[in-house]
Amino acid sequence: MTEQSQYITLINGKPGSTVDINDRGLNYGDGIFETIAVHDGVTLLWDLHWLRLAKGCRQLSLTIPDQETINQELKLLAGRINKGVIKLILTRGIGKRGYRPDPEQVCTRILSSSPWPGKKDGQERAGGIETFISNHVIYPDPQLAGIKHLNRLTQVMASIEVNNEESGYNNRIGIMCDPDNNLVEAISSNIFVIEKHTLKTPELINYGVAGVMRENVLIQANRLGINTEIKILEKSCLNNANEVFLTNSIIGIVPVKRINNNMFKVGEITSKLMTAIKQEKYYA
Amino acid sequence: MTEQSQYITLINGKPGSTVDINDRGLNYGDGIFETIAVHDGVTLLWDLHWLRLAKGCRQLSLTIPDQETINQELKLLAGRINKGVIKLILTRGIGKRGYRPDPEQVCTRILSSSPWPGKKDGQERAGGIETFISNHVIYPDPQLAGIKHLNRLTQVMASIEVNNEESGYNNRIGIMCDPDNNLVEAISSNIFVIEKHTLKTPELINYGVAGVMRENVLIQANRLGINTEIKILEKSCLNNANEVFLTNSIIGIVPVKRINNNMFKVGEITSKLMTAIKQEKYYA
Repeated sequence: MTEQSQYITLINGKPGSTVDINDRGLNYGDGIFETIAVHDGVTLLWDLHWLRLAKGCRQLSLTIPDQETINQELKLLAGRINKGVIKLILTRGIGKRGYRPDPEQVCTRILSSSPWPGKKDGQERAGGIETFISNHVIYPDPQLAGIKHLNRLTQVMASIEVNNEESGYNNRIGIMCDPDNNLVEAISSNIFVIEKHTLKTPELINYGVAGVMRENVLIQANRLGINTEIKILEKSCLNNANEVFLTNSIIGIVPVKRINNNMFKVGEITSKLMTAIKQEKYYA
Repeated sequence: MTEQSQYITLINGKPGSTVDINDRGLNYGDGIFETIAVHDGVTLLWDLHWLRLAKGCRQLSLTIPDQETINQELKLLAGRINKGVIKLILTRGIGKRGYRPDPEQVCTRILSSSPWPGKKDGQERAGGIETFISNHVIYPDPQLAGIKHLNRLTQVMASIEVNNEESGYNNRIGIMCDPDNNLVEAISSNIFVIEKHTLKTPELINYGVAGVMRENVLIQANRLGINTEIKILEKSCLNNANEVFLTNSIIGIVPVKRINNNMFKVGEITSKLMTAIKQEKYYA
């Protein structure tokens, strides 16, 4: 199989590479997406991705797509890849002018596969990264919180700020807070803090994307008997944290060695969870 | 000229109808747009649209497009229309995976013309509409406030709520407030309140779209010697308001006769401004 034929795109089940300019995904960011890791032809954590996709549809009053159809399309794309990424975009479809959707409108379903992003492999960062608190603030909007919708200008703007950051940090995954200086998430990833043997992650009912790997880490922690807390986490909790790590469905778990002046070790709980995730073949 | 050939789309200057699935407009709502009224082949208020477009580019670190190129393309589209609408979308262009834009990336420029939306003609509503306060809240995000970016899920969700509204109101332009019960805007339009001969409109530094017709109304009011105030407006100000109207670049000025239990008249200041706008041929 040639390199070219490995990576393909299906739009509503048919090969393609473009969408109509009247698609509401383009006009209003009216839709949701999932970014799925593929190893050895298998879509990792697909069950959790599907649950979040369905939650997103309910929250945005989008029609939940037929699961069997998506399963078949994913299988077609994943079967061609050894290690790669599938992005799934679901928009409210092609619409007329104006915000108000036509109830009869049919969603646009885009599945496309791409190569594994080399530099973003968690294993290359297993020793831990050094990072910082972003100046970019995540403002609350409970109406859109938790789901992976297509309105992502906040993340884009934060990533531009981070691009301009001329610091000594060895990466550019800035960590973002809400206006009250509570931790929210990092760009494209969720944050976990370990303090006194308890694994803590910010509550995401007012903002943020509740990541699939975040969910998986919480499941694994419960299986391992690690105490977990999902709550508002003030930024100042980093002063007392023993371990910190970031998660997403592609990078898996990435330990954090430093955030600004706070230093952390790659400790026991982080290591246990990294091992659990590898053993589960969730992140190989 | 046939009906079909009247309305056309130019994508980066060439006829087309689709964008690449990797366009950042689709993936992240990473871009801005303008909706421009065309009367007798003339793009109305284009100078104000251009100023806002440029402001949006600066706020989002997008490259400001060449004004002369856009002027020529607008002329081409507007010249074919008696009365219609041109939508201009500017996205950060086709990108690789990930929020962080490539600094070398070239914007996508989409101009498309469409027929005048009959039912939304302000003149049909000149006698005033009856409307209500939406349950949908506009949350502050000063980083994205004022400009007409492509992250419009809040407006989409509000319009769905309004669609479901089974009230006696004769239209579905719900008026939205912030979490502290201050007036923000209506769906697709700005709100003005007249109290004791002063024209007031909400300050939009923390949220909202600063509409081009809002700007034009403020300019006309100054010319007419009407006292204006741009400030935080508590919802309760409607209890003391004499006149209320909504604006956007397509509907012009639409008087509001009723919001929930508050009744208003189509008074002197509203009428003066409607006349001024018509005389200026800004809204014919």
